[in-house]
Amino acid sequence: MSGILYVVGIGPGSMDGMTLKAREALEKSDVIVGYKTYNALVEPYFEGKRYIETPMTGEEERCRLALEEARGGGTVSLICSGDPGVYGMAGLVLETARSYPDVEVRVISGVSAAMSGAALLGAPLVHDFAVISLSDRLTPWDKIEKRLQLAAQADMVIVLYNPSSKGRKDHLRRAVKILGTVLPGDRICGIAGRIGREGESSSILTLDELAGAGTDMFCTVFVGNSETVEIGGKMVTPRGYRSER
Amino acid sequence: MSGILYVVGIGPGSMDGMTLKAREALEKSDVIVGYKTYNALVEPYFEGKRYIETPMTGEEERCRLALEEARGGGTVSLICSGDPGVYGMAGLVLETARSYPDVEVRVISGVSAAMSGAALLGAPLVHDFAVISLSDRLTPWDKIEKRLQLAAQADMVIVLYNPSSKGRKDHLRRAVKILGTVLPGDRICGIAGRIGREGESSSILTLDELAGAGTDMFCTVFVGNSETVEIGGKMVTPRGYRSER
Repeated sequence: MSGILYVVGIGPGSMDGMTLKAREALEKSDVIVGYKTYNALVEPYFEGKRYIETPMTGEEERCRLALEEARGGGTVSLICSGDPGVYGMAGLVLETARSYPDVEVRVISGVSAAMSGAALLGAPLVHDFAVISLSDRLTPWDKIEKRLQLAAQADMVIVLYNPSSKGRKDHLRRAVKILGTVLPGDRICGIAGRIGREGESSSILTLDELAGAGTDMFCTVFVGNSETVEIGGKMVTPRGYRSER
Repeated sequence: MSGILYVVGIGPGSMDGMTLKAREALEKSDVIVGYKTYNALVEPYFEGKRYIETPMTGEEERCRLALEEARGGGTVSLICSGDPGVYGMAGLVLETARSYPDVEVRVISGVSAAMSGAALLGAPLVHDFAVISLSDRLTPWDKIEKRLQLAAQADMVIVLYNPSSKGRKDHLRRAVKILGTVLPGDRICGIAGRIGREGESSSILTLDELAGAGTDMFCTVFVGNSETVEIGGKMVTPRGYRSER
Protein backbone atom coordinates (compact mmCIF):
# COMPACT_ATOMS: atom_id res chain seq x y z
CA MET A 1 0.00 0.00 0.00
CA SER A 2 1.44 3.37 -0.95
CA GLY A 3 1.66 6.30 1.41
CA ILE A 4 1.77 10.05 0.89
CA LEU A 5 4.32 12.45 2.30
CA TYR A 6 3.41 16.13 2.02
CA VAL A 7 6.36 18.50 2.44
CA VAL A 8 4.46 21.54 3.61
CA GLY A 9 5.52 25.18 3.82
CA ILE A 10 3.62 26.86 6.63
CA GLY A 11 4.67 30.40 5.70
CA PRO A 12 6.27 33.09 7.82
CA GLY A 13 5.16 32.16 11.30
CA SER A 14 1.51 32.69 12.13
CA MET A 15 -1.31 30.35 11.20
CA ASP A 16 -2.84 32.84 8.73
CA GLY A 17 0.32 32.89 6.60
CA MET A 18 -0.38 29.31 5.52
CA THR A 19 -2.15 28.57 2.21
CA LEU A 20 -5.49 26.78 2.07
CA LYS A 21 -3.72 23.91 0.29
CA ALA A 22 -1.22 23.59 3.14
CA ARG A 23 -4.05 23.54 5.66
CA GLU A 24 -5.79 20.83 3.65
CA ALA A 25 -2.64 18.68 3.60
CA LEU A 26 -2.31 18.97 7.38
CA GLU A 27 -5.99 18.12 7.83
CA LYS A 28 -5.58 14.95 5.75
CA SER A 29 -2.46 13.81 7.61
CA ASP A 30 -2.34 11.19 10.34
CA VAL A 31 1.15 12.20 11.41
CA ILE A 32 2.86 15.62 11.47
CA VAL A 33 6.66 15.75 11.67
CA GLY A 34 8.59 18.94 12.35
CA TYR A 35 10.87 21.06 14.45
CA LYS A 36 9.21 21.70 17.82
CA THR A 37 8.60 25.44 17.25
CA TYR A 38 6.61 24.72 14.07
CA ASN A 39 4.75 21.78 15.59
CA ALA A 40 3.69 24.00 18.49
CA LEU A 41 2.37 26.56 16.01
CA VAL A 42 0.07 24.19 14.14
CA GLU A 43 -0.92 21.77 16.92
CA PRO A 44 -3.78 23.87 18.34
CA TYR A 45 -5.44 23.96 14.89
CA PHE A 46 -5.06 20.32 13.90
CA GLU A 47 -6.20 17.99 16.63
CA GLY A 48 -6.19 14.21 16.71
CA LYS A 49 -2.87 13.91 14.89
CA ARG A 50 0.29 12.22 16.05
CA TYR A 51 3.04 14.85 16.35
CA ILE A 52 6.70 13.91 16.06
CA GLU A 53 9.27 16.49 17.10
CA THR A 54 12.77 16.51 15.67
CA PRO A 55 15.72 18.79 16.44
CA MET A 56 16.62 21.72 14.14
CA THR A 57 19.64 19.93 12.65
CA GLY A 58 19.64 16.24 11.77
CA GLU A 59 17.71 16.91 8.57
CA GLU A 60 18.44 13.50 7.07
CA GLU A 61 17.06 11.70 10.07
CA ARG A 62 13.92 13.87 9.94
CA CYS A 63 13.37 12.95 6.27
CA ARG A 64 13.84 9.25 6.87
CA LEU A 65 11.55 9.37 9.87
CA ALA A 66 8.79 11.03 7.84
CA LEU A 67 9.25 8.59 4.95
CA GLU A 68 9.16 5.62 7.34
CA GLU A 69 5.87 6.89 8.75
CA ALA A 70 4.39 7.20 5.25
CA ARG A 71 5.67 3.79 4.08
CA GLY A 72 2.90 1.28 4.46
CA GLY A 73 0.06 3.62 3.60
CA GLY A 74 0.14 6.52 6.03
CA THR A 75 -0.51 10.15 5.18
CA VAL A 76 2.22 12.29 6.69
CA SER A 77 3.13 15.98 6.63
CA LEU A 78 6.67 17.17 7.15
CA ILE A 79 6.38 20.88 7.97
CA CYS A 80 8.88 23.65 7.22
CA SER A 81 8.68 27.37 7.92
CA GLY A 82 8.34 29.60 4.86
CA ASP A 83 8.58 27.58 1.67
CA PRO A 84 9.91 24.00 1.81
CA GLY A 85 11.82 24.54 -1.43
CA VAL A 86 13.80 27.64 -0.36
CA TYR A 87 16.63 26.45 1.92
CA GLY A 88 14.05 23.90 3.10
CA MET A 89 13.61 20.15 3.22
CA ALA A 90 12.00 19.50 -0.19
CA GLY A 91 15.27 18.62 -1.95
CA LEU A 92 16.54 16.25 0.70
CA VAL A 93 13.14 14.52 0.92
CA LEU A 94 13.14 13.90 -2.85
CA GLU A 95 16.71 12.57 -2.69
CA THR A 96 15.97 10.29 0.27
CA ALA A 97 12.65 9.15 -1.25
CA ARG A 98 14.56 7.17 -3.89
CA SER A 99 14.82 4.45 -1.25
CA TYR A 100 11.06 4.62 -0.61
CA PRO A 101 9.42 3.92 -3.99
CA ASP A 102 6.10 3.17 -2.29
CA VAL A 103 5.79 6.74 -0.93
CA GLU A 104 4.44 9.55 -3.09
CA VAL A 105 6.03 12.90 -2.21
CA ARG A 106 4.09 16.13 -2.80
CA VAL A 107 5.68 19.53 -2.18
CA ILE A 108 3.20 22.20 -0.99
CA SER A 109 4.73 25.63 -1.45
CA GLY A 110 4.49 28.44 1.06
CA VAL A 111 5.30 32.12 1.42
CA SER A 112 9.07 32.41 1.89
CA ALA A 113 10.67 35.12 4.05
CA ALA A 114 11.75 36.98 0.89
CA MET A 115 8.07 37.66 0.14
CA SER A 116 6.69 38.07 3.67
CA GLY A 117 9.65 40.23 4.69
CA ALA A 118 9.22 42.33 1.56
CA ALA A 119 5.54 42.91 2.37
CA LEU A 120 6.50 44.04 5.87
CA LEU A 121 9.10 46.51 4.56
CA GLY A 122 7.00 47.77 1.63
CA ALA A 123 7.87 46.55 -1.85
CA PRO A 124 11.64 46.08 -2.21
CA LEU A 125 11.46 43.13 -4.68
CA VAL A 126 9.40 44.58 -7.48
CA HIS A 127 12.31 44.10 -9.87
CA ASP A 128 14.91 41.32 -10.40
CA PHE A 129 16.49 39.98 -7.22
CA ALA A 130 18.92 37.42 -5.82
CA VAL A 131 18.39 35.32 -2.71
CA ILE A 132 21.63 34.39 -0.92
CA SER A 133 22.13 32.60 2.40
CA LEU A 134 25.00 33.75 4.62
CA SER A 135 25.18 30.38 6.36
CA ASP A 136 28.49 28.66 5.62
CA ARG A 137 27.45 25.48 7.42
CA LEU A 138 27.00 23.77 4.03
CA THR A 139 28.53 26.26 1.57
CA PRO A 140 32.15 27.47 1.45
CA TRP A 141 32.38 31.15 2.43
CA ASP A 142 34.34 32.09 -0.72
CA LYS A 143 31.39 30.91 -2.85
CA ILE A 144 29.05 33.11 -0.81
CA GLU A 145 31.42 36.09 -1.27
CA LYS A 146 31.53 35.56 -5.02
CA ARG A 147 27.74 35.46 -5.25
CA LEU A 148 27.40 38.66 -3.23
CA GLN A 149 29.85 40.47 -5.48
CA LEU A 150 28.24 39.33 -8.74
CA ALA A 151 24.69 40.03 -7.52
CA ALA A 152 25.76 43.56 -6.56
CA GLN A 153 27.42 44.06 -9.96
CA ALA A 154 24.18 42.89 -11.60
CA ASP A 155 22.30 45.68 -9.77
CA MET A 156 19.81 43.18 -8.43
CA VAL A 157 18.01 43.62 -5.14
CA ILE A 158 19.65 41.14 -2.74
CA VAL A 159 17.83 39.20 -0.04
CA LEU A 160 20.07 37.74 2.67
CA TYR A 161 18.83 34.70 4.57
CA ASN A 162 20.54 33.58 7.78
CA PRO A 163 22.38 36.90 8.31
CA SER A 164 23.67 35.71 11.67
CA SER A 165 23.31 33.10 14.36
CA LYS A 166 25.10 32.09 17.56
CA GLY A 167 27.97 30.50 15.70
CA ARG A 168 28.47 33.24 13.11
CA LYS A 169 28.02 36.66 14.62
CA ASP A 170 30.02 38.63 12.06
CA HIS A 171 28.73 37.21 8.76
CA LEU A 172 26.49 40.17 8.03
CA ARG A 173 29.31 42.64 8.70
CA ARG A 174 31.60 40.66 6.40
CA ALA A 175 28.91 40.49 3.70
CA VAL A 176 28.32 44.25 3.91
CA LYS A 177 32.04 44.86 3.51
CA ILE A 178 32.04 42.85 0.26
CA LEU A 179 28.87 44.53 -1.03
CA GLY A 180 30.47 47.89 -0.17
CA THR A 181 33.23 47.28 -2.73
CA VAL A 182 30.53 47.57 -5.42
CA LEU A 183 27.63 49.50 -3.85
CA PRO A 184 27.55 53.00 -2.32
CA GLY A 185 27.32 53.33 1.46
CA ASP A 186 23.99 55.15 1.24
CA ARG A 187 22.26 52.29 -0.59
CA ILE A 188 18.78 51.74 0.92
CA CYS A 189 18.52 48.50 2.92
CA GLY A 190 15.93 46.90 5.18
CA ILE A 191 15.71 44.37 7.98
CA ALA A 192 12.58 42.29 8.64
CA GLY A 193 12.58 40.50 11.98
CA ARG A 194 10.37 37.75 13.44
CA ILE A 195 7.98 38.06 10.49
CA GLY A 196 4.43 37.07 11.38
CA ARG A 197 5.37 36.33 14.99
CA GLU A 198 5.29 38.14 18.29
CA GLY A 199 7.93 40.86 18.28
CA GLU A 200 7.70 41.41 14.51
CA SER A 201 9.88 44.35 13.50
CA SER A 202 11.12 46.19 10.45
CA SER A 203 13.67 48.89 9.88
CA ILE A 204 15.05 50.80 6.92
CA LEU A 205 18.66 51.89 6.96
CA THR A 206 21.68 52.46 4.71
CA LEU A 207 24.28 49.87 3.73
CA ASP A 208 26.80 51.63 6.00
CA GLU A 209 24.39 51.38 8.92
CA LEU A 210 23.66 47.73 8.09
CA ALA A 211 27.28 46.80 8.89
CA GLY A 212 26.70 47.57 12.55
CA ALA A 213 23.06 46.52 12.79
CA GLY A 214 22.01 43.89 15.28
CA THR A 215 20.44 40.88 13.62
CA ASP A 216 19.67 37.34 14.71
CA MET A 217 18.63 34.10 13.04
CA PHE A 218 15.03 35.34 12.78
CA CYS A 219 15.99 38.29 10.56
CA THR A 220 15.90 38.61 6.78
CA VAL A 221 17.92 41.43 5.23
CA PHE A 222 17.15 43.32 2.01
CA VAL A 223 19.72 45.35 0.04
CA GLY A 224 18.11 47.63 -2.53
CA ASN A 225 19.13 48.14 -6.15
CA SER A 226 20.21 51.49 -7.63
CA GLU A 227 16.59 52.64 -7.94
CA THR A 228 15.31 51.59 -4.52
CA VAL A 229 13.91 54.48 -2.47
CA GLU A 230 12.31 55.11 0.87
CA ILE A 231 8.73 56.36 0.59
CA GLY A 232 6.90 57.25 3.79
CA GLY A 233 8.85 54.76 5.87
CA LYS A 234 8.57 51.98 3.27
CA MET A 235 11.33 50.44 1.13
CA VAL A 236 10.23 50.54 -2.51
CA THR A 237 11.96 49.38 -5.70
CA PRO A 238 10.18 50.82 -8.74
CA ARG A 239 9.55 48.43 -11.60
CA GLY A 240 9.67 51.19 -14.10
CA TYR A 241 5.95 51.78 -14.61
CA ARG A 242 6.73 55.47 -14.33
CA SER A 243 7.78 55.42 -17.97
CA GLU A 244 4.07 55.21 -18.78
CA ARG A 245 3.49 58.65 -17.38
CA MET B 1 -12.33 58.89 7.70
CA SER B 2 -9.44 56.71 6.65
CA GLY B 3 -9.74 53.75 4.34
CA ILE B 4 -7.72 50.59 3.89
CA LEU B 5 -6.26 49.26 0.68
CA TYR B 6 -5.03 45.67 0.80
CA VAL B 7 -2.67 44.73 -2.01
CA VAL B 8 -3.29 41.02 -2.05
CA GLY B 9 -1.32 38.18 -3.64
CA ILE B 10 -3.69 35.36 -4.51
CA GLY B 11 -0.95 32.83 -5.32
CA PRO B 12 -0.42 30.72 -8.40
CA GLY B 13 -3.89 30.41 -9.80
CA SER B 14 -6.32 28.25 -7.89
CA MET B 15 -8.25 29.31 -4.81
CA ASP B 16 -6.33 26.95 -2.52
CA GLY B 17 -3.00 28.63 -3.32
CA MET B 18 -4.13 31.71 -1.40
CA THR B 19 -3.11 32.26 2.24
CA LEU B 20 -5.67 32.46 5.03
CA LYS B 21 -4.60 36.08 5.54
CA ALA B 22 -5.34 36.88 1.89
CA ARG B 23 -8.75 35.26 2.19
CA GLU B 24 -9.44 37.30 5.30
CA ALA B 25 -8.54 40.54 3.51
CA LEU B 26 -10.90 39.73 0.65
CA GLU B 27 -13.67 38.85 3.11
CA LYS B 28 -13.28 42.22 4.84
CA SER B 29 -13.31 44.20 1.60
CA ASP B 30 -16.27 46.07 0.13
CA VAL B 31 -14.63 46.43 -3.25
CA ILE B 32 -12.26 44.10 -5.14
CA VAL B 33 -10.19 45.55 -7.98
CA GLY B 34 -8.23 43.40 -10.42
CA TYR B 35 -7.55 42.08 -13.88
CA LYS B 36 -10.61 40.18 -15.10
CA THR B 37 -8.98 36.72 -15.00
CA TYR B 38 -8.16 37.13 -11.30
CA ASN B 39 -11.53 38.67 -10.46
CA ALA B 40 -13.24 35.68 -12.12
CA LEU B 41 -11.16 33.34 -9.98
CA VAL B 42 -12.13 34.84 -6.63
CA GLU B 43 -15.68 36.04 -7.36
CA PRO B 44 -17.44 32.69 -6.70
CA TYR B 45 -15.91 32.56 -3.20
CA PHE B 46 -16.50 36.14 -2.09
CA GLU B 47 -20.06 37.21 -2.71
CA GLY B 48 -21.71 40.56 -2.04
CA LYS B 49 -18.66 42.56 -3.10
CA ARG B 50 -18.39 45.16 -5.79
CA TYR B 51 -15.93 43.95 -8.45
CA ILE B 52 -14.04 46.38 -10.65
CA GLU B 53 -12.23 44.97 -13.66
CA THR B 54 -9.24 46.69 -15.18
CA PRO B 55 -7.15 45.76 -18.23
CA MET B 56 -3.76 43.98 -17.86
CA THR B 57 -1.76 47.11 -18.64
CA GLY B 58 -2.68 50.56 -17.33
CA GLU B 59 -1.22 49.74 -13.95
CA GLU B 60 -1.18 53.35 -12.78
CA GLU B 61 -4.85 53.81 -13.48
CA ARG B 62 -5.62 50.59 -11.58
CA CYS B 63 -3.71 51.87 -8.53
CA ARG B 64 -5.43 55.24 -8.56
CA LEU B 65 -8.81 53.61 -9.00
CA ALA B 66 -8.24 51.35 -6.00
CA LEU B 67 -6.95 54.26 -3.89
CA GLU B 68 -9.95 56.40 -4.90
CA GLU B 69 -12.28 53.63 -3.77
CA ALA B 70 -10.51 53.39 -0.40
CA ARG B 71 -10.40 57.17 0.15
CA GLY B 72 -13.29 58.18 2.34
CA GLY B 73 -13.33 55.06 4.48
CA GLY B 74 -13.79 52.05 2.21
CA THR B 75 -12.01 48.73 2.56
CA VAL B 76 -10.63 47.70 -0.80
CA SER B 77 -8.52 44.81 -2.10
CA LEU B 78 -6.37 45.14 -5.18
CA ILE B 79 -5.57 41.58 -6.24
CA CYS B 80 -2.46 40.31 -8.03
CA SER B 81 -1.50 36.81 -9.09
CA GLY B 82 1.39 35.24 -7.19
CA ASP B 83 2.94 37.75 -4.81
CA PRO B 84 2.11 41.47 -5.14
CA GLY B 85 5.71 42.42 -4.41
CA VAL B 86 7.37 40.28 -7.13
CA TYR B 87 6.87 42.07 -10.46
CA GLY B 88 3.52 43.05 -8.96
CA MET B 89 1.61 46.17 -8.00
CA ALA B 90 2.83 46.71 -4.43
CA GLY B 91 5.55 49.19 -5.38
CA LEU B 92 3.40 51.34 -7.61
CA VAL B 93 0.60 51.41 -5.02
CA LEU B 94 3.01 52.65 -2.34
CA GLU B 95 4.36 55.31 -4.72
CA THR B 96 0.89 56.45 -5.77
CA ALA B 97 -0.40 56.37 -2.18
CA ARG B 98 1.73 59.41 -1.35
CA SER B 99 -1.14 61.44 -2.82
CA TYR B 100 -3.65 59.59 -0.63
CA PRO B 101 -2.48 60.17 2.96
CA ASP B 102 -5.88 59.10 4.31
CA VAL B 103 -5.53 55.58 2.92
CA GLU B 104 -3.61 52.90 4.81
CA VAL B 105 -1.90 50.43 2.44
CA ARG B 106 -1.24 46.86 3.62
CA VAL B 107 0.65 44.41 1.43
CA ILE B 108 -0.48 40.77 1.87
CA SER B 109 2.15 38.44 0.43
CA GLY B 110 1.40 35.37 -1.65
CA VAL B 111 3.16 32.38 -3.16
CA SER B 112 5.09 33.63 -6.19
CA ALA B 113 5.60 31.48 -9.32
CA ALA B 114 9.24 30.88 -8.28
CA MET B 115 7.95 28.89 -5.30
CA SER B 116 4.85 27.26 -6.81
CA GLY B 117 6.71 26.37 -10.00
CA ALA B 118 9.57 24.95 -7.95
CA ALA B 119 7.16 22.72 -6.02
CA LEU B 120 5.69 21.47 -9.30
CA LEU B 121 9.14 20.61 -10.70
CA GLY B 122 10.54 19.17 -7.47
CA ALA B 123 12.99 21.28 -5.49
CA PRO B 124 15.19 23.36 -7.80
CA LEU B 125 15.57 26.36 -5.44
CA VAL B 126 17.01 24.74 -2.35
CA HIS B 127 20.15 26.83 -2.70
CA ASP B 128 20.85 30.49 -3.65
CA PHE B 129 18.93 31.75 -6.68
CA ALA B 130 18.25 34.78 -8.85
CA VAL B 131 14.86 35.84 -10.22
CA ILE B 132 15.06 37.69 -13.55
CA SER B 133 12.25 38.86 -15.83
CA LEU B 134 12.80 38.61 -19.59
CA SER B 135 10.25 41.34 -20.27
CA ASP B 136 11.91 44.40 -21.78
CA ARG B 137 8.72 46.43 -21.64
CA LEU B 138 10.14 48.39 -18.70
CA THR B 139 13.80 47.31 -18.58
CA PRO B 140 16.46 47.79 -21.27
CA TRP B 141 17.45 44.43 -22.81
CA ASP B 142 21.18 45.01 -22.23
CA LYS B 143 20.52 45.23 -18.48
CA ILE B 144 18.66 41.90 -18.63
CA GLU B 145 21.59 40.34 -20.55
CA LYS B 146 24.08 41.56 -17.98
CA ARG B 147 22.04 40.13 -15.12
CA LEU B 148 21.75 36.74 -16.86
CA GLN B 149 25.49 36.61 -17.39
CA LEU B 150 26.41 37.56 -13.83
CA ALA B 151 23.82 35.21 -12.28
CA ALA B 152 25.24 32.34 -14.36
CA GLN B 153 28.80 33.26 -13.31
CA ALA B 154 27.64 33.24 -9.69
CA ASP B 155 26.45 29.62 -10.13
CA MET B 156 23.02 30.54 -8.79
CA VAL B 157 19.85 28.76 -9.85
CA ILE B 158 18.05 31.20 -12.17
CA VAL B 159 14.29 31.65 -12.36
CA LEU B 160 13.04 33.38 -15.51
CA TYR B 161 9.70 35.20 -15.36
CA ASN B 162 7.95 36.30 -18.56
CA PRO B 163 10.00 34.01 -20.85
CA SER B 164 7.86 34.97 -23.82
CA SER B 165 4.64 36.62 -24.92
CA LYS B 166 2.98 37.67 -28.15
CA GLY B 167 5.25 40.63 -28.62
CA ARG B 168 8.52 38.89 -27.72
CA LYS B 169 8.63 35.37 -29.06
CA ASP B 170 12.41 34.96 -29.12
CA HIS B 171 13.40 36.32 -25.70
CA LEU B 172 13.91 32.89 -24.17
CA ARG B 173 16.07 31.75 -27.08
CA ARG B 174 18.17 34.91 -26.77
CA ALA B 175 18.49 34.44 -23.00
CA VAL B 176 19.57 30.81 -23.42
CA LYS B 177 22.23 31.92 -25.89
CA ILE B 178 23.68 34.31 -23.30
CA LEU B 179 23.51 31.74 -20.51
CA GLY B 180 25.22 29.26 -22.86
CA THR B 181 28.33 31.45 -22.95
CA VAL B 182 28.82 30.58 -19.27
CA LEU B 183 26.89 27.34 -18.65
CA PRO B 184 27.23 23.90 -20.31
CA GLY B 185 24.55 22.79 -22.78
CA ASP B 186 23.58 19.84 -20.61
CA ARG B 187 22.69 21.98 -17.59
CA ILE B 188 19.41 20.72 -16.07
CA CYS B 189 16.50 23.12 -16.63
CA GLY B 190 12.75 23.01 -16.03
CA ILE B 191 9.58 24.64 -17.30
CA ALA B 192 6.47 25.05 -15.15
CA GLY B 193 3.35 25.98 -17.09
CA ARG B 194 -0.08 27.22 -15.99
CA ILE B 195 0.77 26.52 -12.34
CA GLY B 196 -2.31 25.71 -10.27
CA ARG B 197 -4.63 26.09 -13.26
CA GLU B 198 -6.26 23.81 -15.79
CA GLY B 199 -3.61 22.51 -18.17
CA GLU B 200 -0.83 22.66 -15.55
CA SER B 201 2.36 21.16 -16.94
CA SER B 202 6.00 20.63 -16.09
CA SER B 203 8.99 19.40 -18.02
CA ILE B 204 12.66 18.87 -17.33
CA LEU B 205 15.15 19.39 -20.11
CA THR B 206 18.69 20.58 -20.84
CA LEU B 207 19.78 24.16 -21.52
CA ASP B 208 20.33 23.23 -25.19
CA GLU B 209 16.79 21.89 -25.41
CA LEU B 210 15.43 24.99 -23.65
CA ALA B 211 16.52 27.18 -26.57
CA GLY B 212 13.93 25.55 -28.80
CA ALA B 213 11.26 24.90 -26.18
CA GLY B 214 7.78 26.33 -26.64
CA THR B 215 6.83 28.65 -23.80
CA ASP B 216 4.11 31.25 -23.34
CA MET B 217 3.34 34.01 -20.87
CA PHE B 218 2.00 31.45 -18.37
CA CYS B 219 5.37 29.67 -18.10
CA THR B 220 8.12 30.05 -15.53
CA VAL B 221 11.55 28.71 -16.44
CA PHE B 222 14.19 27.32 -14.07
CA VAL B 223 17.89 26.97 -14.92
CA GLY B 224 19.75 24.74 -12.47
CA ASN B 225 23.11 25.42 -10.82
CA SER B 226 26.17 23.18 -11.21
CA GLU B 227 24.82 20.69 -8.64
CA THR B 228 21.23 20.43 -9.88
CA VAL B 229 20.21 16.89 -10.84
CA GLU B 230 17.18 15.03 -12.09
CA ILE B 231 15.89 12.46 -9.61
CA GLY B 232 12.97 10.29 -10.67
CA GLY B 233 11.56 12.93 -12.99
CA LYS B 234 12.06 15.76 -10.48
CA MET B 235 14.48 18.72 -10.69
CA VAL B 236 16.48 18.85 -7.46
CA THR B 237 19.21 21.23 -6.30
CA PRO B 238 20.96 19.77 -3.23
CA ARG B 239 21.62 22.13 -0.38
CA GLY B 240 24.62 20.21 0.72
CA TYR B 241 23.14 18.25 3.60
CA ARG B 242 24.91 15.24 2.16
CA SER B 243 28.06 16.44 3.87
CA GLU B 244 26.47 15.23 7.09
CA ARG B 245 26.65 11.64 5.92
